[in-house]
Amino acid sequence: TIVEEVIALLHSRLSMAGKRVLITAAGTREPIDPVRYIGNRSSGKMGYALAQVAAARGAEVVLVSGPSSLPNPPCVTVKRVETAAEMRDAVLAEFDAVDVVIKAAAVADYRPELTAQQKIKKTEDMLTINLIKNPDILRELGQRKKQQLLIGFAAETEDLLAHAQEKLIKKNLDMIVANDVTLPGAGFNIDTNIVKVIHKNGQVEALPQLSKYQVAEIILDKICAILTKST
Amino acid sequence: TIVEEVIALLHSRLSMAGKRVLITAAGTREPIDPVRYIGNRSSGKMGYALAQVAAARGAEVVLVSGPSSLPNPPCVTVKRVETAAEMRDAVLAEFDAVDVVIKAAAVADYRPELTAQQKIKKTEDMLTINLIKNPDILRELGQRKKQQLLIGFAAETEDLLAHAQEKLIKKNLDMIVANDVTLPGAGFNIDTNIVKVIHKNGQVEALPQLSKYQVAEIILDKICAILTKST
Repeated sequence: TIVEEVIALLHSRLSMAGKRVLITAAGTREPIDPVRYIGNRSSGKMGYALAQVAAARGAEVVLVSGPSSLPNPPCVTVKRVETAAEMRDAVLAEFDAVDVVIKAAAVADYRPELTAQQKIKKTEDMLTINLIKNPDILRELGQRKKQQLLIGFAAETEDLLAHAQEKLIKKNLDMIVANDVTLPGAGFNIDTNIVKVIHKNGQVEALPQLSKYQVAEIILDKICAILTKST
Repeated sequence: TIVEEVIALLHSRLSMAGKRVLITAAGTREPIDPVRYIGNRSSGKMGYALAQVAAARGAEVVLVSGPSSLPNPPCVTVKRVETAAEMRDAVLAEFDAVDVVIKAAAVADYRPELTAQQKIKKTEDMLTINLIKNPDILRELGQRKKQQLLIGFAAETEDLLAHAQEKLIKKNLDMIVANDVTLPGAGFNIDTNIVKVIHKNGQVEALPQLSKYQVAEIILDKICAILTKST
């Protein structure tokens, strides 16, 4: 009947009702001085699409975002941060209470050892910047996780599958979404993506070029399937 | 009469008809590897406001912009570039044919000596990046200029007037617009600015906090006054 179909549709639309989802998006900025920083090319589009789709499915979504020009997605709690250290604090503050964590942000692996208090003048012909490692947020979450499903992203420019599979294991993830950011139609600051989804059991699915919203729908379908199986 | 007032109004509105204006905006990005770059906090708002106001006054405007999330201003030819080297090429290609150059871009003073072809993996605890000086576009324009009025910007975090006056002289500018980017209400990625306008003769005018569009109107008023005097 029509009523049954509407109920089935609503059910699928609200397939994440009652779930708390933490999503990170965009890149972090690591300041060199008050003007300059080390950044990366992540626009936040993949993470914002995930947040919007998860909220549309009825989940309670917190989006921790690095600097991005994207508007806040509707019905999503957005916490804007700048550096990897700030992202770590924001993520850890939410982590214990959530069911699913999707780390789509491109967190800077390194930050300048020293941040100059004033703008560095261009008096020298050469400058050297020493970088030190940032805390590895994803690894920390993998060590701390209890009920949480933990999904990571790997943006690579070579040896995509090997790097992504290694990251899945090292960080104790439940799933990783890997994309080669050098492919046309994939990667940073465009509206489409070409990803491979790698599961904990080693299963790999290669998706065709899709809009980032379509990729978000598929990723969330897979998360819902895991959540259903585990309850 | 009303007709005279309309003519006067149109005249003031089209006070830059027939003038060719080259404006640069936003910051440049200097790649470390395919993912990471050294950037700066310039949003492009001041330069885009200048381009829009100059076009509204009837000027033929070319805007050379670093990466920015702002939409192209109406009736402006926009050339988007990424690095300081690309900005230099785009600016020099236009320079000989223009009457006015306003360099509102925050061009990176330094770039990484080497750009890695692949994403740098975080295997090392520390990394060192060697930076070398970028070409000084403004100085080059100051040396080459003939008929062109050359207006620069100085974004400083200390000793604002001294740094800006030194830049005006060293770069052979006709005017410099200086702002202390640490002041609330001034600087990067906000809609207002607090600037000091310094003329070639040493005269300094301090403007109050204004919208970037209001600052653009005042700067273009001053440019029009110089253009009128010199013809």
